[in-house]
Amino acid sequence: MAQTPPLALTIGEPAGIGPELAAMAWLARRKAGIEPFVLIGDRALVAERARTAGLGDVALADIDQTDLPGAGGLFADALPVLPVGGIDVVSVDPGKPDPVAAGLVTGAIETAVRLVHEGAAGAVVTNPIQKETLYVAGFAHPGHTEFLGELAGRFWGVDVHPVMMLACDTLRVVPVTVHIPLSEVPQHLTGELIERTIRVVARDLKSRFGVTAPRIAVAGLNPHAGEGGTLGREETDVIVPALARLRAEGLDVAGPLPADTMFHAAARARYDAAVCMYHDQALVPIKTLAFDEGVNVTLGLPFIRTSPDHGTALDIAGTGTADPTSLIAALRLAGKLARTGSGASADAA
Amino acid sequence: MAQTPPLALTIGEPAGIGPELAAMAWLARRKAGIEPFVLIGDRALVAERARTAGLGDVALADIDQTDLPGAGGLFADALPVLPVGGIDVVSVDPGKPDPVAAGLVTGAIETAVRLVHEGAAGAVVTNPIQKETLYVAGFAHPGHTEFLGELAGRFWGVDVHPVMMLACDTLRVVPVTVHIPLSEVPQHLTGELIERTIRVVARDLKSRFGVTAPRIAVAGLNPHAGEGGTLGREETDVIVPALARLRAEGLDVAGPLPADTMFHAAARARYDAAVCMYHDQALVPIKTLAFDEGVNVTLGLPFIRTSPDHGTALDIAGTGTADPTSLIAALRLAGKLARTGSGASADAA
Repeated sequence: MAQTPPLALTIGEPAGIGPELAAMAWLARRKAGIEPFVLIGDRALVAERARTAGLGDVALADIDQTDLPGAGGLFADALPVLPVGGIDVVSVDPGKPDPVAAGLVTGAIETAVRLVHEGAAGAVVTNPIQKETLYVAGFAHPGHTEFLGELAGRFWGVDVHPVMMLACDTLRVVPVTVHIPLSEVPQHLTGELIERTIRVVARDLKSRFGVTAPRIAVAGLNPHAGEGGTLGREETDVIVPALARLRAEGLDVAGPLPADTMFHAAARARYDAAVCMYHDQALVPIKTLAFDEGVNVTLGLPFIRTSPDHGTALDIAGTGTADPTSLIAALRLAGKLARTGSGASADAA
Repeated sequence: MAQTPPLALTIGEPAGIGPELAAMAWLARRKAGIEPFVLIGDRALVAERARTAGLGDVALADIDQTDLPGAGGLFADALPVLPVGGIDVVSVDPGKPDPVAAGLVTGAIETAVRLVHEGAAGAVVTNPIQKETLYVAGFAHPGHTEFLGELAGRFWGVDVHPVMMLACDTLRVVPVTVHIPLSEVPQHLTGELIERTIRVVARDLKSRFGVTAPRIAVAGLNPHAGEGGTLGREETDVIVPALARLRAEGLDVAGPLPADTMFHAAARARYDAAVCMYHDQALVPIKTLAFDEGVNVTLGLPFIRTSPDHGTALDIAGTGTADPTSLIAALRLAGKLARTGSGASADAA
């Protein structure tokens, strides 16, 4: 029987909590029901960090790419670590990000994506990175997601429109605009952006999540979704026409809905994903419901990518107090999506 | 032993669900542990609506103001209804608001406030009104709250700054700006408005809710509370200085905090009320956690006023399918605040 390829977990910022979380997740593999994963990184660094964090002797196994088909069996007894080609051993103290490790960080991401492209890994799970440190070393992308988009283009030859989704057991949310000041949200909200985002969500709900006929609920921008134009015009002028065009394409979209009545249990039962107009409109409800269990999923890529919904937590790195719940949830969801997913889902529009 | 004065419940829009909700709440009085209340309205209209809604024969007792001291005893066997002086019997069909009833609607509110001012009622609980219908009849206030502010001035002779709070068992939220388009929120957010709002919240948490040393958490406006100015300047320019001035006055205010990490259970345990910058930032979390049980409390008034957190629901009025949960919660909270409250709390600044 052909083995399912393992998940590829990147080491993330080595001065952050990523390395110890990887070890914690491996230690919890049976109890948490985590599919086999390989850590793309540096074995010596992880071993040292596991000791510093008081995790005891975590069994680590150096592997190379030819070992990947058997990594699933190996995983029961040791955490397989695949080094990043061309990167010397780096030593980084917890809490002190150093640009010297930038090649390890970006190389791990690149390797993970390449392995999925080659069919040697099933999905990419990324630990958090420290962007500022990478910038010093010449990293030219605004963030993780844009870098993954570039890699999608490099390996698959497709243009992508990456879309951020946060998912927990009871809710999936997608912000149309993300990391911009609130005052700039109205001008960024175009019909084209809303339509493109919702098309990616609908397609990936089908292809990745196995939702046959995705039902998408769309929030308004204003209080009470504008209350017929008296509390804002964006619903009437932008959102309503965009949703009409999507319905004409056969998509099942409801809205624009008042955001405050979209997220209680009975309302959540009516849709498969909620598309929101800005960061907090999407993140407030999901983090209220599932603070530790939320997983970040990047839609619109030709591969599956999940990540924990937290940062590098430099202040507690190396102390062993980091909570692996979100990384474990990210690994579990990646495994589930890798089994469900029906292949590539790139936005080639 | 002196009896506690009853709560004064206004009839609200007679074409809406208010009349039948009042009857439902009375029917649930024992099970729900509701303090005695009198309905300010029209007995014949409530009797007719209770029949239409299939509630059976609800015992109603016509009373006048001299009966109020004994209304608590009467309440066990019948719902006491106090008519609005000078208003003829009105007949309004469910679902069809008619300006002919405007005098009943506004008169009930005025009567309720007057009764509290005279010590004959303990608190005001308002059923939802239909503003547009009142406007036709000459109502000159933007809404319920402004009218209550005017009545506070008329009866108590004080200027007030009414502040909307939504409360459930596990969370209290206050939006600094409320019913304005999202695009106008940044320009409305002044240090003065934030400070005035938080002062009212702190004072009423003490005087109304019995919180000895109120801890107030304040949200930022932007994603990640502006992330040090890179995702918006309002935190640095407006909110931080306002909070510094409040701290100098001795208030316990935390923030500006990222809104998305403020509302999970562990975060909620750290404060007595969350002050938010706009409508959905406050209402999304509380309606996600407690959709039916949320109660609207108006702070900053010289009397206690609560109301259910829903509208007139004209589409289901008279069908008996309305859910009295929020009105019951509003009556219960009003009763609790009336027992706790240490008297007037007007913003005479």
